[in-house]
Amino acid sequence: MRDRIRPVDLAKSYLLLNHGPVTLVSTAFHGRRNVMAASWAMPLDFDPPKVLVVIDGSTFTRELIEASGEFALNVPFRRIADKVLAAGSVSGRDGDKFAHAGLTTFPAERIGAPLVCDCAAWLECRVIPEAHNQRRYDLFIAEVVAAWADPAVFSENRWHFPDAARKTIHYQAGGAFFETGRHVECGG
Amino acid sequence: MRDRIRPVDLAKSYLLLNHGPVTLVSTAFHGRRNVMAASWAMPLDFDPPKVLVVIDGSTFTRELIEASGEFALNVPFRRIADKVLAAGSVSGRDGDKFAHAGLTTFPAERIGAPLVCDCAAWLECRVIPEAHNQRRYDLFIAEVVAAWADPAVFSENRWHFPDAARKTIHYQAGGAFFETGRHVECGG
Repeated sequence: MRDRIRPVDLAKSYLLLNHGPVTLVSTAFHGRRNVMAASWAMPLDFDPPKVLVVIDGSTFTRELIEASGEFALNVPFRRIADKVLAAGSVSGRDGDKFAHAGLTTFPAERIGAPLVCDCAAWLECRVIPEAHNQRRYDLFIAEVVAAWADPAVFSENRWHFPDAARKTIHYQAGGAFFETGRHVECGG
Repeated sequence: MRDRIRPVDLAKSYLLLNHGPVTLVSTAFHGRRNVMAASWAMPLDFDPPKVLVVIDGSTFTRELIEASGEFALNVPFRRIADKVLAAGSVSGRDGDKFAHAGLTTFPAERIGAPLVCDCAAWLECRVIPEAHNQRRYDLFIAEVVAAWADPAVFSENRWHFPDAARKTIHYQAGGAFFETGRHVECGG
């Protein structure tokens, strides 16, 4: 995988989340790993880039993030929407959720968490400890330490989706997503 | 306007932001009012419903939110994308930005901030004071105290966009948006 993806300028990495796609949060700690779907993830700052993500206190992902201080946000392609849903509906405590959901991975560069294949973009993140936010709101703030995109869909700091299978997706509810739709250019 | 919109169950109001649309943040305090575009807004909790929004410290909107403790998140229709862009590119300190951007308003029910016409949905919000987050991250946490939607696009807790003009939009960068695209249903 690694030779087929391209680094994204860190200060431009917010563009990977700006349009509000669903994400997969991948984590690992001491040989245990997990993945979950998260719609509640967004940019918080440009440079150094930061992100926000809400991770429920009961999840195995939460346990691995608190232990490792790291996670990746993966922005999945439409063609794996079924797998995203599977990753959002079972617990990783019951066995390897990547295998269960049919998700394959490749190594990250700066963190221990794996990156998920069949995604448009990836943000490798290190938690900025904020105990009050974590405890009270299940809210994690993290710095983006590396960012990547598939050049077939994102290059020169722009999205350009070549086909429906490789669009990003936005979660509604009840197992349904929206595709990222047509480009709208404004006069200003 | 008010007679043409419908209340949304508070515990379901997260659905109005779940797919990551751009928002207009409207504010008012003591006869002064403002509006700005914000992509960095998302749900934080279901019940009682909470939202997150990032509001830069230099903005007039920030001043009005800190003074009033209130704001509304308006989810604009595609047909006013030009106006959203205008609201994102000038300061309300230089005159009434609603008038400048050509945005019309109607009164909210529970807060003093006006709601913006030609939107799909509205969330009336009261700030939960979190001084550290506001100062350090420009991050505001608020409780949703009332929520509304245009029944032409959202009813029975589902989006159903009837035409392109009344789709929601997602901000990219450089004056470009994506429309909310096609519905993707998964097998599970």
